[in-house]
Amino acid sequence: MAGGRRLSAEQRRAELVRAATAVFAERGYRGTSLAAVAERVGITAQGVLHHFRTKDALLLAVLEERERDLGGAAAAAGGTADRLRYVVTRMLAEPGIPQSLCVLSADSVTEGHPAQGFFRARYERLRTRLADGLRAEFGDTVPGGLGPEAAAVLLVAVLDGVRLQWLLDPTAVDLAAAVDDAVRLLLERG
Amino acid sequence: MAGGRRLSAEQRRAELVRAATAVFAERGYRGTSLAAVAERVGITAQGVLHHFRTKDALLLAVLEERERDLGGAAAAAGGTADRLRYVVTRMLAEPGIPQSLCVLSADSVTEGHPAQGFFRARYERLRTRLADGLRAEFGDTVPGGLGPEAAAVLLVAVLDGVRLQWLLDPTAVDLAAAVDDAVRLLLERG
Repeated sequence: MAGGRRLSAEQRRAELVRAATAVFAERGYRGTSLAAVAERVGITAQGVLHHFRTKDALLLAVLEERERDLGGAAAAAGGTADRLRYVVTRMLAEPGIPQSLCVLSADSVTEGHPAQGFFRARYERLRTRLADGLRAEFGDTVPGGLGPEAAAVLLVAVLDGVRLQWLLDPTAVDLAAAVDDAVRLLLERG
Repeated sequence: MAGGRRLSAEQRRAELVRAATAVFAERGYRGTSLAAVAERVGITAQGVLHHFRTKDALLLAVLEERERDLGGAAAAAGGTADRLRYVVTRMLAEPGIPQSLCVLSADSVTEGHPAQGFFRARYERLRTRLADGLRAEFGDTVPGGLGPEAAAVLLVAVLDGVRLQWLLDPTAVDLAAAVDDAVRLLLERG
């Protein structure tokens, strides 16, 4: 049992985030519970509560870890277009994660939601990084004719908006094709 | 008191949907309750339960009514580009409605959610109507170079995705400007 090992608080936290990533990926937002994550690492739900007080707190930790992870892997993927396509392959591989994010990010738009500050900062960061990357690659106008900041808003919007349609009806909406359409229109126009 | 009048079930239902539209628009998803809607029309919460069993059921009725309404007004607005811009002015005028829709539609992607069938059908309908309109207006290729169906997926995605960023941070994201960028890119390219 993993629970029998002696782990530092930091190691235990990291182990819980890894386990939670797998559980959210497999079971989605509703199907994930602190108890299911606890079971996966062989400790009690009470033991999880010591590190994460709610399912949403655990999901936010998963998201932070994933952003670091995607940041590194996507940077290796080259230009912005390739990075966006890489993000899509990750979504397709583990649909429980984008599903969980879709639910929690939308829920956070309501007044006083505990994750609102997190998501506001996250979207600000995503737009800024994307715009910086586009400016470095294309200068002040991307091939589709927009400025980098305006293009960043639309690219993030397309990823989120197509994700919603695809999660609702994966047979009707081709996530990769739709994101690819937007990438070509905005970033690869001749 | 409105509640003192004798209304048919249909009239009462319509009155409740009108009142709920105002309450959702003013107070958003969390701030709206069956009790608040009941109070607005001068009946008891029990009286509302007779017509709508949950807040979400009431929100779905608001959405259906609004879709009929927007359908008529938007059709009068002319081409697809103008119709999409009209939808944005409505969102800006009553942000509690798009906020409520953002929460419920995203929540519906989870397994077995009671509104999942509704939103799956709604998105299918939105895409089909939009694509039909685009085909009537532009033929088999819209000015941005995509087919009508692919363009419809992206336009709906942009509306939803920019809505999320705007609801989280209205000072950082200009909803009308971002939708306008997408409309010009897809539908008005020279």
